[in-house]
Amino acid sequence: MGGDFAPANEVQGVLDALRETNNRFHVVLVGDEKALREELVKRGAGGESCSVVPASEVIGMEESPTTALKQKRGSSLMVGITLHKERKADAFVSAGNTGAMTAASMLTLGRIIGVSRPAIPAIFPSEEGTTLLMDVGAVTDSKPHFLYEFGVMGSIYAEYMFNKKRPRVGLLNIGEEESKGDELAKEAYKIFKKNASAINFIGNVEGRDILKGAADVVVCDGFVGNVVLKFGESVPAFLKTKFKKYADQGMVQKILMASLRTPLRKIFKDFDYQEHGGVPLLGVNGVSIIGHGSSTPKAIKNMIYRAEEMVRLKINFHIEEKLSRYQPGSLGKNETEQ
Amino acid sequence: MGGDFAPANEVQGVLDALRETNNRFHVVLVGDEKALREELVKRGAGGESCSVVPASEVIGMEESPTTALKQKRGSSLMVGITLHKERKADAFVSAGNTGAMTAASMLTLGRIIGVSRPAIPAIFPSEEGTTLLMDVGAVTDSKPHFLYEFGVMGSIYAEYMFNKKRPRVGLLNIGEEESKGDELAKEAYKIFKKNASAINFIGNVEGRDILKGAADVVVCDGFVGNVVLKFGESVPAFLKTKFKKYADQGMVQKILMASLRTPLRKIFKDFDYQEHGGVPLLGVNGVSIIGHGSSTPKAIKNMIYRAEEMVRLKINFHIEEKLSRYQPGSLGKNETEQ
Repeated sequence: MGGDFAPANEVQGVLDALRETNNRFHVVLVGDEKALREELVKRGAGGESCSVVPASEVIGMEESPTTALKQKRGSSLMVGITLHKERKADAFVSAGNTGAMTAASMLTLGRIIGVSRPAIPAIFPSEEGTTLLMDVGAVTDSKPHFLYEFGVMGSIYAEYMFNKKRPRVGLLNIGEEESKGDELAKEAYKIFKKNASAINFIGNVEGRDILKGAADVVVCDGFVGNVVLKFGESVPAFLKTKFKKYADQGMVQKILMASLRTPLRKIFKDFDYQEHGGVPLLGVNGVSIIGHGSSTPKAIKNMIYRAEEMVRLKINFHIEEKLSRYQPGSLGKNETEQ
Repeated sequence: MGGDFAPANEVQGVLDALRETNNRFHVVLVGDEKALREELVKRGAGGESCSVVPASEVIGMEESPTTALKQKRGSSLMVGITLHKERKADAFVSAGNTGAMTAASMLTLGRIIGVSRPAIPAIFPSEEGTTLLMDVGAVTDSKPHFLYEFGVMGSIYAEYMFNKKRPRVGLLNIGEEESKGDELAKEAYKIFKKNASAINFIGNVEGRDILKGAADVVVCDGFVGNVVLKFGESVPAFLKTKFKKYADQGMVQKILMASLRTPLRKIFKDFDYQEHGGVPLLGVNGVSIIGHGSSTPKAIKNMIYRAEEMVRLKINFHIEEKLSRYQPGSLGKNETEQ
């Protein structure tokens, strides 16, 4: 119920997914029962494998996550995530308030053993296909070993979800040499190097390497990742204003730009991570997929497919397995369990 | 001598600047005397107001700044910056090794009173004109008051060099609310707020606001700034590969893209900060302009103009004046002087 176009786009996306897959799975719609049933009827729902679980409240996009979660225990978000916690559902997807979604998932589902901080990856287009940047906002003030764990989680996600063999994991830094960077990067580098056999660590990468595709997974603190994600998302709008200015110069320019509208839109779409149908909060003990607030029915449909894939490919099992073999080495127990 | 095309582009840029301005200033060329004189002769130098000061060594692009500065005391960089330190020159410009340039400037020239850490701004294109991002790599592991000082220095630079009245200064963060961000951003926010009268602080801005032009000056730690700068610089190359793929689809597409080559190149040029002719290391007690290694003669010429402007507009005087009025408030003496 929390998405910008809820529940219309949500219901349409669910029906599309079920029709496209011949009810390969069952979807539970959580929220205002009347509104959901109306949307189902309006969209000609009949034999689709879906049901409705009522929830009386909705957390708005602008609400403070912590306050909202405390005050609205009957929200569609909390009811849904609790269904998942009780294993009445195998996964939970939402296009609602990202902060609330992150907090509710962490508090309700808990963490996978070995994970200090669940994190959110973003999928960037690259000259080589895609680059996973992680974290993009769930964790700030990271400790060095958080970054190593992001690397392991990102590597597993890229391997299973994007079919990449031995994904190349790079540490985002301001220079390639081992001695470069801030304290966090320098210390993280040491942990990556010490555990080099666990993943395919290729060393430091720089800001330019994300779009270049020099690594499959680029690891960073959530502050840096969030800034880069939002900067990247703003590139299409910026170029559009530039192209518009060019088109305004005359008739020839206008025709040229008009004929380029479709290819340009396609290229720019790559910067919009909702096209991938949402991203998981990796590291929670469950499958929690976070979508863009303005998710289209297509994005909702893809989010459901992503959730199904994460369950089917046992992403969390692989993360736990890999991180349990991880030797914290010189790290104290307190530090690893923080 | 340290630039990728030194001393050819350097000498050409100097001659262009002097010819264009009817010798409005005098330029001292520092480096291999024979090579410099040959370049001057080759380019028909005659009445231009320039001279040569010999320097026997060159610091390479790939050399470690600290080692190079220790071992090559006779480098063109050190001889040049020493001329400036002794006020035999009013400014120093170089297209050489950025790290060495930064270190040499700080060690030789020292800092302006009130400045904890000299920093490098980058000039981003924006929908509104330009956005100054600062710092982009000189300072990592910033303390909160460093960011405030970057804000003051950036504000003065934008006001005098870009003719902006009361430049809007934003703190780069991952959300707009005061409570958002990592520890650094939260603490820096408090200092900005406490000293709100000194500059036009508009609060937190996000990654998307840089190209949008929501602020004239965006302040951040050098790690974040460097990542965003390099990411931004990689956008044109990424889009070029995408456009090329589109052109390869057929003859119509090829012709369309060919006719767009010139406007595209112009738009992409905005991402290349060398077009502005280099950026200063702001906060050193002098004028030290850092250019791109592959600076063209035009970039060299513009660097010289930038240096002249910084001297003429007394940028450093304004920085010192403003930061001396800055009330550190709760900060201890030790902290401000670190």
